[in-house]
Amino acid sequence: MHSYYVVFHVDENERWGVTLTNVTNTLNSGDDIGIAVLANSEAVRGLLPGAEGAARIGPLSDRGVEFIACRNALRALGIAPDSLPAFVMVVPSGVVELVKRQAAGYAYIRP
Amino acid sequence: MHSYYVVFHVDENERWGVTLTNVTNTLNSGDDIGIAVLANSEAVRGLLPGAEGAARIGPLSDRGVEFIACRNALRALGIAPDSLPAFVMVVPSGVVELVKRQAAGYAYIRP
Amino acid sequence: MHSYYVVFHVDENERWGVTLTNVTNTLNSGDDIGIAVLANSEAVRGLLPGAEGAARIGPLSDRGVEFIACRNALRALGIAPDSLPAFVMVVPSGVVELVKRQAAGYAYIRP
Repeated sequence: MHSYYVVFHVDENERWGVTLTNVTNTLNSGDDIGIAVLANSEAVRGLLPGAEGAARIGPLSDRGVEFIACRNALRALGIAPDSLPAFVMVVPSGVVELVKRQAAGYAYIRP
Repeated sequence: MHSYYVVFHVDENERWGVTLTNVTNTLNSGDDIGIAVLANSEAVRGLLPGAEGAARIGPLSDRGVEFIACRNALRALGIAPDSLPAFVMVVPSGVVELVKRQAAGYAYIRP
Repeated sequence: MHSYYVVFHVDENERWGVTLTNVTNTLNSGDDIGIAVLANSEAVRGLLPGAEGAARIGPLSDRGVEFIACRNALRALGIAPDSLPAFVMVVPSGVVELVKRQAAGYAYIRP
């Protein structure tokens, strides 16, 4: 249990950099905040090994950040779920996950 | 009554495509989610007959999705409310509608 | 105490114009809504005197709108907090502020 929860929404590849900086700042704030990063649409590509920013994702996962990918987006782009790092959770629908997280009390931030 | 509610916010014309895909994925998820799409700023143009994506909007309305346009934006762009499809609800202020929907328990997604 | 609260999130300089129009429309709606505008990432530059839109910010502050800047962003960009107008509140982390405002009942809008 954390004091607060937040889900960051990334659906444009060019927003990965600012999002990961946002996540790092949240972790370093000293506040007790559970963090999830949900990628859908074209932004699921940013979770692939070799993507710009990919080197920053593993260490953030090690610090407790959840990374979540939308299966609809993976299918549309022809990306096999098992080509993603093992720590990435794949959900049937990214937008439904965003709805359920907010209903569960997560703040929503769209960098 | 639905189990969940969500309002999608569109204020850039180039985000209509991804938004309508998000809406379709939400409808097809099997989850019981009430869906509204609120357009303000330049994005109210996307609701006009003939706009790119306009052919996708009617069928989504038939499936129960609410489409909402901001009157401030229509006025600023010189668009007559009655030039929009009859199923589009016009509200005095799009941002106020977004505030009230969230206060009523809607999740917010900005594709 | 207001009937509703909203925080507008600006993290791209080119979104300041539409955000300030959104804020003005909210103020002019006649609804009783407390308004905060939080800038982080590159968008903290928009709060500097001389920035495009800067002339619109002071009068909105006079009408009760809170303007908030992220210290992490200021530091990354080499901007001294005291170069901002005195009415701008500087917080340690913009994203943490967004989380806490939402937890306190603020709606979130990302123009």
